Amino acid sequence: MKYCQSTFILILISILISCTSAQTKKVEVKEAIADQLPSWNEGATKASIVEFVKEVTDKNSPNYVDPKDRIATFDNDGNLWAEQPYYFQLQFALDRVKSMATDHPEWKEDSLMLAVMNNDIDAIMKSGIHGLLKIVMTSHAGMSTEEFEKIVLDWINTARHPKTGKLYREMVYQPMLELLDYLRANDFKVFIVSGGGVEFMRPWAEESYGVPRNQIIGSSIKTKFIYENDETRIMRLAEIDFIDDKEGKPIGIHKFIGRKPIFASGNSDGDLQMLQYTASGEGKRFMLYLHHTDSVREWAYDKDSHIGRLDKGLEEAAKHNWTVIDMKNDWKVIYPFELN
Amino acid sequence: MKYCQSTFILILISILISCTSAQTKKVEVKEAIADQLPSWNEGATKASIVEFVKEVTDKNSPNYVDPKDRIATFDNDGNLWAEQPYYFQLQFALDRVKSMATDHPEWKEDSLMLAVMNNDIDAIMKSGIHGLLKIVMTSHAGMSTEEFEKIVLDWINTARHPKTGKLYREMVYQPMLELLDYLRANDFKVFIVSGGGVEFMRPWAEESYGVPRNQIIGSSIKTKFIYENDETRIMRLAEIDFIDDKEGKPIGIHKFIGRKPIFASGNSDGDLQMLQYTASGEGKRFMLYLHHTDSVREWAYDKDSHIGRLDKGLEEAAKHNWTVIDMKNDWKVIYPFELN
Repeated sequence: MKYCQSTFILILISILISCTSAQTKKVEVKEAIADQLPSWNEGATKASIVEFVKEVTDKNSPNYVDPKDRIATFDNDGNLWAEQPYYFQLQFALDRVKSMATDHPEWKEDSLMLAVMNNDIDAIMKSGIHGLLKIVMTSHAGMSTEEFEKIVLDWINTARHPKTGKLYREMVYQPMLELLDYLRANDFKVFIVSGGGVEFMRPWAEESYGVPRNQIIGSSIKTKFIYENDETRIMRLAEIDFIDDKEGKPIGIHKFIGRKPIFASGNSDGDLQMLQYTASGEGKRFMLYLHHTDSVREWAYDKDSHIGRLDKGLEEAAKHNWTVIDMKNDWKVIYPFELN
Repeated sequence: MKYCQSTFILILISILISCTSAQTKKVEVKEAIADQLPSWNEGATKASIVEFVKEVTDKNSPNYVDPKDRIATFDNDGNLWAEQPYYFQLQFALDRVKSMATDHPEWKEDSLMLAVMNNDIDAIMKSGIHGLLKIVMTSHAGMSTEEFEKIVLDWINTARHPKTGKLYREMVYQPMLELLDYLRANDFKVFIVSGGGVEFMRPWAEESYGVPRNQIIGSSIKTKFIYENDETRIMRLAEIDFIDDKEGKPIGIHKFIGRKPIFASGNSDGDLQMLQYTASGEGKRFMLYLHHTDSVREWAYDKDSHIGRLDKGLEEAAKHNWTVIDMKNDWKVIYPFELN
């Protein structure tokens, strides 16, 4: 099965992405290190995170960082929640198109739309950029932002993953939820910086990850402001505004945050520029890659994957001594529902 | 003297704008109402602000608003700091062009650049969109974001206003600094939403207003990410990315904040759409216009002004019963330096 290998198609798909939810228990411990990241096995990975946080928060350390500069950025797909067998936002787009079909009898003559109806991912991918863009814009544009938010929430609260049978939003990574809490407990300001659509994430990600809406950055389409009879609407237009992937990530960070992170976490080559940008600053900095190595509990994939490919990133991580999470060995549990 | 009357030219100038600084004493009082806004005279304006804040923060009130929805947005030019005789960011642009002149002997043959050298605002404005854009891009693009930040800081820490002789950043409004503190003390999240350039504001506005960089929204030019020899730069390009004025304000709010404000404050017709957007939500909401009525201590201007024109906005405020600050009568002091 040949999926989209070209960068551009991946970028287009990436505008479709992101999602999840789970209860995160507040980590309020500053002393008992063993309790701060309970779903992480003891070892070099966990130790490197804890050591970094201790250094930058210790006023007596030469590597102390003022709280206002404690910026941490996290990719979402495949980093805070799963992304296989394909980006969850793509499934959202397909489900949305299907739900619109009764109003579009003309789609019965349309081979792309027929492929969507049949969930024929191969045929959809073969349709190329033009086909994917049509699916994205059909499912994501043409309504107000309020209407779109309702559509997203309806989906995220009901749609289930084909392999686990769980809600997509339940497929967040428990160890990463703990890491977000741990950083915040140490006065980091945490941002999500995702190739996924910002308006696909915001309706649920604030609750799922404890990250305020204005700290969620993603790809976007253009919008238009309408004022009529004292009522206002912001309409979603079928035109790309910003692609928050690869070079777009440092640009998005600069645009939305205005400060270089000291901690960046990703899982694919699409995050490499964000990690390079983070690494290039002065003082102590932390670059973290999540390597999907667990074919039993999650998925195992890297340089040959059609989704979340991690190739150049692994090379760079080795070269620069960045921390790489080995999912299989570093994580005690993957999903919050395993704790029940 | 005929300044730029056309909307488009105003928008172009607006990408140049914003600035100030001053010490704001932390307002920690929740009880002693008299002390919360000490630079505001007692009267209907102050009372309406206090009444609104009390209602939305009182859990027993039908108008109670959850803290995460307590979003307040403030325009900057002419609202948090002064903007006469023309936007301070325009003076920054002119000063910047002047400082570059020794490296550009060819500008001696250029009538526009000669007008800049002579601070001939009339001639500059007569050069129209093309001329203004050339000044903006010459002064604001072609360097890295780090270099630009240094240029801005050098200017903001030394440049003085022709009328007051004070640093531009000293010309913030003391009553508004108190209002920002008052809202934050009541768990509002405060954002700046300005037509001025976001990268012109962020280097100093965080300190001046106590607003974190990622809560400062403004107009922007495009940027490009560069990675060479493990070093990264974000270069500023001579191309407009986003104009955060008029319809751009609600669009920017949606893009950067992702939540509709319940409190919005501005001083010109460029803020009208932000106030309309704010007003259109459910529940209690507060729309605030600052009317420049003090020709002695500051400036008096509204519907006929070439800068910060307030015409349609005053009509709408009257029609919808929005609160309008009468600067002359509502404010005990204008600038923090009057307190010394």
